[in-house]
Order: sequence, then structure tokens, then C-alpha cells
Amino acid sequence: MLIIKDEPMNLEELLSIRQMTCKVTPDGDGQEIVLCGFVTNIRNVGKNLKFIILEDRDGDVQLIAKRGEIEENYLELADKITSQSVICVKGIITKSEKSKRGVEVKIQEFQILSRSEPALPSDISGDTHPDLSTRLDWRHLDLRNKRNQTIFMISSDFLKYSREFFEKEGLIEINTSKLIGIPSEGGAEVFEVKYFDKKAFLAQSPQLYKQMAISSGFEKVYEIAPVFRAEKSFTARHVTEFISLDVEVAYWPSLSDLIDFQESMLVYALTKLKEKWNDNVKELFDVEIDIPPQPIPRITMDQAYEILKEKGLELEKGDDIGTQGEKLLGEVALEKYNSDYLFVTHYYFTQRPFYHMKPEDNTELTLSFDLLYKGAETTTGALREHNYETLVMQAKEKELEIEPLAFYLNFFKYGCPPHGGFGFGPARLIMKLLNLGNIREAIMLPRDTHRLHP
Amino acid sequence: MLIIKDEPMNLEELLSIRQMTCKVTPDGDGQEIVLCGFVTNIRNVGKNLKFIILEDRDGDVQLIAKRGEIEENYLELADKITSQSVICVKGIITKSEKSKRGVEVKIQEFQILSRSEPALPSDISGDTHPDLSTRLDWRHLDLRNKRNQTIFMISSDFLKYSREFFEKEGLIEINTSKLIGIPSEGGAEVFEVKYFDKKAFLAQSPQLYKQMAISSGFEKVYEIAPVFRAEKSFTARHVTEFISLDVEVAYWPSLSDLIDFQESMLVYALTKLKEKWNDNVKELFDVEIDIPPQPIPRITMDQAYEILKEKGLELEKGDDIGTQGEKLLGEVALEKYNSDYLFVTHYYFTQRPFYHMKPEDNTELTLSFDLLYKGAETTTGALREHNYETLVMQAKEKELEIEPLAFYLNFFKYGCPPHGGFGFGPARLIMKLLNLGNIREAIMLPRDTHRLHP
Repeated sequence: MLIIKDEPMNLEELLSIRQMTCKVTPDGDGQEIVLCGFVTNIRNVGKNLKFIILEDRDGDVQLIAKRGEIEENYLELADKITSQSVICVKGIITKSEKSKRGVEVKIQEFQILSRSEPALPSDISGDTHPDLSTRLDWRHLDLRNKRNQTIFMISSDFLKYSREFFEKEGLIEINTSKLIGIPSEGGAEVFEVKYFDKKAFLAQSPQLYKQMAISSGFEKVYEIAPVFRAEKSFTARHVTEFISLDVEVAYWPSLSDLIDFQESMLVYALTKLKEKWNDNVKELFDVEIDIPPQPIPRITMDQAYEILKEKGLELEKGDDIGTQGEKLLGEVALEKYNSDYLFVTHYYFTQRPFYHMKPEDNTELTLSFDLLYKGAETTTGALREHNYETLVMQAKEKELEIEPLAFYLNFFKYGCPPHGGFGFGPARLIMKLLNLGNIREAIMLPRDTHRLHP
Repeated sequence: MLIIKDEPMNLEELLSIRQMTCKVTPDGDGQEIVLCGFVTNIRNVGKNLKFIILEDRDGDVQLIAKRGEIEENYLELADKITSQSVICVKGIITKSEKSKRGVEVKIQEFQILSRSEPALPSDISGDTHPDLSTRLDWRHLDLRNKRNQTIFMISSDFLKYSREFFEKEGLIEINTSKLIGIPSEGGAEVFEVKYFDKKAFLAQSPQLYKQMAISSGFEKVYEIAPVFRAEKSFTARHVTEFISLDVEVAYWPSLSDLIDFQESMLVYALTKLKEKWNDNVKELFDVEIDIPPQPIPRITMDQAYEILKEKGLELEKGDDIGTQGEKLLGEVALEKYNSDYLFVTHYYFTQRPFYHMKPEDNTELTLSFDLLYKGAETTTGALREHNYETLVMQAKEKELEIEPLAFYLNFFKYGCPPHGGFGFGPARLIMKLLNLGNIREAIMLPRDTHRLHP
């Protein structure tokens, strides 16, 4: 049937009744539908038949333009469509045995909303480009790839489910400033900002301020926000800016309650993530979403040193275990406990910042923990020292200058609830969860020593 | 009855059964309860009776220590409690006609968790300190004041409800980098960062990147994150860092659909906020939460110029209307439409950045809008130009250099859905909603030309 238009296509009207490709089902056979999206494939069968694949966020569908069933001027226009162009189509849903999904759309009218240049700068069709750097140079094209786009759909949902958990537990979201007067975690690896006629720094973590919120009586807070690290190391897991998920809560009965809390949060968020995404993740990344066992195995730092010694990595007590140590512990967790997750607790004070609380019976240690996932640190947490005098002493033990810390130390002078919390990097988790190999894949616009663009 | 302890108070055990003050009700008469919080008042009646007010996040309760009903050593310890100290108390809920809430707690045991210095640096008890600068210097004490703390409870919920709306509408949260290679909104008012041996800048908005997400096919995105403005002006409504709520969505049928979207979002979030907070807001701020009318009145910029002329502010078409103009329009909105909210649409191209779309029939104007609330700009939005050639032309019309913009312009070279969005400052809204008078009150750690601490 030849379709004759009574009047020119009214784009505003069409956009207002636009639907998603998932609405194209065999049940809708014969119904009219308006779709918008990217053209990802064009195939001509002779001069009389054209197949176009249209893709939107939800999926793709095959469109058909057949001479005799569509006006000639649309056929001419169809020849001008380039791959990656964006079009708006009005058509009829039509059952079709031959089509992949058993259904396709016969084009009645369409309009090219944005025409792509015919040649793309990098190959984004089909599989992901093998060179990550090229991919990142053309990130906006790279993210049209379903696999790559899905990484950020999943990241977004992970944050959503984490927030849900925090709300359920009575935590309040806070927003602390990223421009700060002194480096938040000591002087190393901090970016300096020209601040009018002064110097400012970019917060390496919201640590000092989430503790301020505790001192102010907010009791339970979280923040999800960027942190900045002037990391010179160019590795697969270091970037200069990433989202940190920070928690601080007052009145923990003990360190293990704090650790339980993070465990519950992960189980909650990952269970929800698995329900929604596991099929896609299997298909696109060839892995299953990995929910932690409950409880996640926990070992102390002293036990970790012993295990590492057995594995051939001999360290002094108090030494940093480093990337190599973490990797070995990840292997042991899998062998010994059949778990990709491992909590390491009671780090030595030498390994931790001055504000971590020490246990009463051993001032060499701290009431702290890391969460390793597949042998990579994803979380650092601790109970915090809330006694002013002890805190000053611990800062001196770290040979820090007291005066620049005065504003922070004041948080503990006028009553402060005992508290603890952690900082957690969701991109590290997502990277390991999906076996991405490089943290840059899990950050929309990664920044490192070399990269500030796009 | 004299309470005899069998063994010393086990803090870990007590903290694990801690409850909030809201659980102290006359119905619980006779029951044991464990509470933690700040001591906000201590009153001695002779030597045998002591009243202590304990406050936690949920409220406060009166504690009683009476000689003969508590061990002597606890009475001695009670004399050491200073105001603002943090204590953990085990006691018995007891009905009491004399007490404000009809109930109080008879102390059995308690422990001082954190002792405050006896004298506070600024007066934080009772009403808020009149000098905002002093308050901000001692922000952690200032926020113990219920009024001030409530501002951030409300801000937090406003973000929560906004997110709920976005999720409901199918928007995906994105996280874009704040460290950028070129200024995001032109060169003015941008902070420069020492980035290894290069220069970086702090994003003034996620504008370029939320548009990138559209070009990547995410279709509907939002971001809630800090933005940075090197504002030299020291006014009650300018700060150098604030949270921006950014939206970008593809395939709007028209500008008014985009405006409708923001309107719906505000009605949704503020209705929920009112349900939860209106009583507190009335009590603490002496105002009611102000839900916008639907529809919010809308005038074009041309109409705005005429109204301003009637009000005595004569401007050339295309001139910026400035703070003064916005204030006058706010007054008119209230007089003429009985609304504190007003949309102004179709700004002149001279008033807008190069990427705002122009209507086909008038290249002097843009398909843009601002939302004024009580005479202050809270939102700037527009449909965006998505045609590469037109965009380059518009950039040239603004006398911008094309080369540094190349990476951004590339987003439109290979197909890009038509789209539009807005940036919205929740702190501005909260300031005006609660009649705060200064935006610094609505930001936990405000930053301006003078302030980088705490």
C-alpha cells in the first residue's frame, strides 16, 4: 500500500508521541509507532528495498523501506542517510518471520534529525576498538557501543542501590566542599589551585568534613562525590579523579559492626544489581555478578603477614603490603575461603593516617580495615580517634605540624561522638566485577597524568 | 531504689542496644533504655538532684540523677559533665507530669564518651549567633543548633526527591570529570589547577559532558555534583563552589516540554518536602514550604523588557537584565500572578552562551529559559544547537576560538540527537525557600573570595 501524506511531517507532534524500540513487539502488529534513534546499519537489496537498523537506549529494531509502499521522495531521502545518523521514523509495526525479533517496522515517513559524516574517525561499530587510548579520545563514539554504555548504566544503578541502603539505615547525604585550605590527607599527591591571590587544594577525600558532620550531631552521614589525587603513577588502576563513596557513622559498638555495615551494603547493592543486570552482564562481559559471601572472610594484618610469608613475600610487621601483597591475599582468599572478597583488619599505625583509632591494648595497631576485591583495595575504613589529646599525640607521632590541623582538631574539643567510617571506590569495584582490566573503562571521562580530554 | 551494678558498665554492649530519644514515650514507662547524645543543659537542684538534657539527632529528653537512687560514684562523675559533652546513659523511662514531654529517664549508669571543654568559643546555645562569619568559623558547633542542622536535612531530602523524580522519568545518573582541559563555559571566572607540568581547570558546569552523554546515546541523564566559579563578587548569593543539579534529555518536542519537566520536578520534590518538613519549617523558620503553581507563569524576554520599562528600568533589547531586573520581575510575578516562581523564556543570543539553539524564525533569540524564584535566578536552561555547522557559526558569532572547542564540536559531527536541559542550584532555592538571607547558610562549608576554612 502506497502511503500518501496529507500534510508535511510535523516533527513536534511526532516527538510528543515517540516510543522506545522495546515497544515494537509482534503483539503490536499493524499499529503505528514513532521511533527515534541512531542508524547503526543500512542494507540495500537491489534498488527497491532498504533495511535500516535503528537503535535507541533500550535496543534496536529493523526498519523497512520498500518501493511502492513509501513515497518516492522518502526513498530518495533514505539514500542520504549515513550510518550513525539520528532519525525520527513513523511506521507500522509488522510481524516478520525473517526478522531477528520476529517483528519489524515498515517506514511511512521519517526525518533525518542529525546527519553523521560518512566516515567515522575510529571503528566503533561491532566490537570495541582494541586500543583504549583511541577509544577514550573518541569517548562519545566509544560509548555508543552497548557494552561500553552498559558499564555506566550499571555504575549508575550501583550508586542508586547504595543510596537506597544508606537511606534505609538512616544516613543523611552531605555535600562537602572540594576546595580546601589545607590538604585533607597530608601533603602528598594533592592538586594545588590558584585561588584569587591565595592557594587552595582539591580535597583528596571528604574525611575531615564527614567527621565534622559527626561532631555537629548528624550522627550518620554519607557522601558520593569526586575526590582528587595527584597520582603520578600511570597504571591500570590509578586515575587523578574518581567518585568516592564515603560513610561516617557515630556510636559503633565495635570495629566489626562497621565492617558488617559495609558488607551488608555490598550484599544489598550487588543483589539488586544482579537481579536487574545479570543476563546482560553474562552476555556482554562473560561473567556473573559476584555477590559477596556473608560473612566475608576477615583476617588481621598479623595473619596477613604470615600468609604472605608462606607465599614467599616476607615483610616486617608494619610494612606496607603493596599491590603485590594485596594480589597475593586475593589469591589466598579464593583458594582458602572460596571468596573474591576479603577484609583485612587491624593495620599497623605506620600504615594508616594519624586519625585512625588505636586499640587500648596495642598502640602499634589501629582499629581499621581494608576491603580487598579480587586482590585490589576497594575500601579503607576505621574507627576514628575522637579524643582531642590522643589525636594531637597521634598527629605528633606522625610528625605532622599541629597548627595547620587546628581547625580539624577543634572538631574534637567540644564533645564529639565516637565514630567510624570508610571511603570506597565504586569504579574499582565495577572494574573488577566486570573484569575490565583497566579502571579507565569504568570512568566516563578518566583523568591521568597524560589525559585531560575530552 | 538504689541501683547496684553487678559488673562495670560494658560500653560495647550498651552501644549495641542504643535507641534514639524519640523512643522515650510515656507508654514505655518502667522500661530500660540506652541513649547517647550531647548534653545541652545541666541543672542542679540542691546537692541531691540533677537534671540533664540529652540531645540526639531526633530530639531531646530530660535525664534525672537523684541521690539515693543512683550509685554515689555516678553522682560524683555527673559533676564532671560539661555542657556539649557526649554521654551514653542507661536508665529507666519514667512518666512525669512535670517534664515537658510527660516523660523523663532516671539514670542508672552512664559514661562520658567525650568531654567538652567547659567554655565554648562562640555562643551556640539557644538562638543562632548573629554574626554569620563567626558561625562559619565554628561551623561544627553552629550546626549543632537544630535550626541550622535542619537546613541540611531538608537539602538532603530535596536532592533525594529530585533523584526519585529523575529515576521515575528514566534519567540515568552520570558522573563527569571536574578536572578539565579547557574552561567549560568560556574563559571567565574559571579556577586554574596546577596539573603536573600542565594546566587544568575546574569545571564551571558539566555542560559539555552531559551533552557528550546525549551524543553517546544515553538519551536522558542527570548529574548532581559540585561546580566551581571563580566569582570575585562577595555578595549574599555568590559562592565559589556549589552543588549543581544538571539535566540533559534528548528529543524534546519543544522548549515548553523542557520547561514543563522542570516544573514537574519542582512540584514533585517540594510536595514531598512539604509533607515531611512543613511543621518543622514553620516552627524553625516561620515560613511555609512554597509549592509552585502549575503552570508556573511564563513570560518571554521581550515581555520582560516591557514589564521592566513600566517599573522604571529601561533596557535595550538584548541587554542583561541583571540582579535588579530579576528582583523587579520577582515582584511583578507576585503582584500579577500571585506566584513566587516565574519562567522567563526566549533570551536574546547576546545574553546566552553560543550553544543555545536559536528559533528558526528569529536568529536574535534563543530557545532558552531561566527560572526565577523570589526574584533570584535558580535555573538556566535551553534547547541546544546540535547541528555541527550551525554550532561552529554560533561560536564564531561569539568570537570564540574554534580550535580549543574542537573536542566538544566533535560530539555533533557523527550524529547527535536533538536535546536540551538545564542547570539548577538547589542551595539558591533552599536559601529563598527558608528565607535565609545568605546562600552561605544553605551550604555546609561555603567558599568565597575570603573563605577556605574550615
